[in-house]
Amino acid sequence: MNAPDLEFWFEFGSTYSYLAAARIETAAASVGLRVRWEPFLLGPIFAEQGWDDSPFNVYPAKGRYMWRDMERLCSKHGIPFAKPSRFPRSGVIAARVACLAKATREPWLPGFVRAVFRANFAEDREIGDAAEIRSILDAFGLPGARLVERSEAPENRGRLREQTRRAAGLGIFGAPSFVVGGELFWGNDRLEDALEWATPGR
Amino acid sequence: MNAPDLEFWFEFGSTYSYLAAARIETAAASVGLRVRWEPFLLGPIFAEQGWDDSPFNVYPAKGRYMWRDMERLCSKHGIPFAKPSRFPRSGVIAARVACLAKATREPWLPGFVRAVFRANFAEDREIGDAAEIRSILDAFGLPGARLVERSEAPENRGRLREQTRRAAGLGIFGAPSFVVGGELFWGNDRLEDALEWATPGR
Repeated sequence: MNAPDLEFWFEFGSTYSYLAAARIETAAASVGLRVRWEPFLLGPIFAEQGWDDSPFNVYPAKGRYMWRDMERLCSKHGIPFAKPSRFPRSGVIAARVACLAKATREPWLPGFVRAVFRANFAEDREIGDAAEIRSILDAFGLPGARLVERSEAPENRGRLREQTRRAAGLGIFGAPSFVVGGELFWGNDRLEDALEWATPGR
Repeated sequence: MNAPDLEFWFEFGSTYSYLAAARIETAAASVGLRVRWEPFLLGPIFAEQGWDDSPFNVYPAKGRYMWRDMERLCSKHGIPFAKPSRFPRSGVIAARVACLAKATREPWLPGFVRAVFRANFAEDREIGDAAEIRSILDAFGLPGARLVERSEAPENRGRLREQTRRAAGLGIFGAPSFVVGGELFWGNDRLEDALEWATPGR
């Protein structure tokens, strides 16, 4: 039996998604799994739970804890981190570009995703602005302006809406989430459990 | 420098507290740490966040995930589990008994805590009823009726209220939580990080 793919559901505004994005490729490769990068938006899912903001802003004690936890975890894993001056930032533009890259199977998708997360959570850049996303794409030698423009086409906007609907249909209520072999795992700290589920006894 | 104690903040109605209670003594002993058992109530803390019920009931997708996650984790750690027919159950009576045992430094405190969690999450017993708590104490050869009665004294009720105030003052917003060396860790899945923090490089 072939090992299933590991679906990685992420949102660019999510702190713990940054951690998972930085770790997942190495971790999955170490057990012979392939990663499927699945961008989606938490906003519509949080709205259904009655939140119009990140729960880390809605619940201040939880927010204070999360920022300290991020410092500790990034330090432990050797991942650069600087608390962004604004939180959460909109991931819509970046997620549309990621959907476009996914639809056309671009090999630069994982690198782009990691670069956007780093811009948000290590470089304090405004990833909600199209200019920053263009500049990140340009730095890969890609035509940033054209890609951002194409990502705004109605057909591609529909792709992102469909991704978010699929996420909700899978029972996803937060990010990052992993889906493998029909099982859902929530949170950066469940990445290892997801790998173990996909490759039992390995 | 002596290793600090590991404070274990738990609530008897909390599923993930059950997992941590079952694991903590062995885990802490393996790195030479002593556990301080700290009962408190989540109810007043959740009420400040605007919830009059467990967030796992308030947010159904999160609840469905949690029950599946508990099955998987209990299976992984070899901890018995049966989804209780009622959730959450009130931990008030058990927490008062635990506060009494803590105040008088009873050696049976950890065993009592584990037995109450097991009753709730493996045996589907109504731990919110005084009769069940008496019966759990009796099974240890302790005077259950007398202990439950003593735990209801105003002075001891005050101890539990004070514990919950202390928890909030430490920044605790959920259970289980661990405090060690001035650092707060939230969630059963952070137990290992808390141990590592207390005994770096070990």
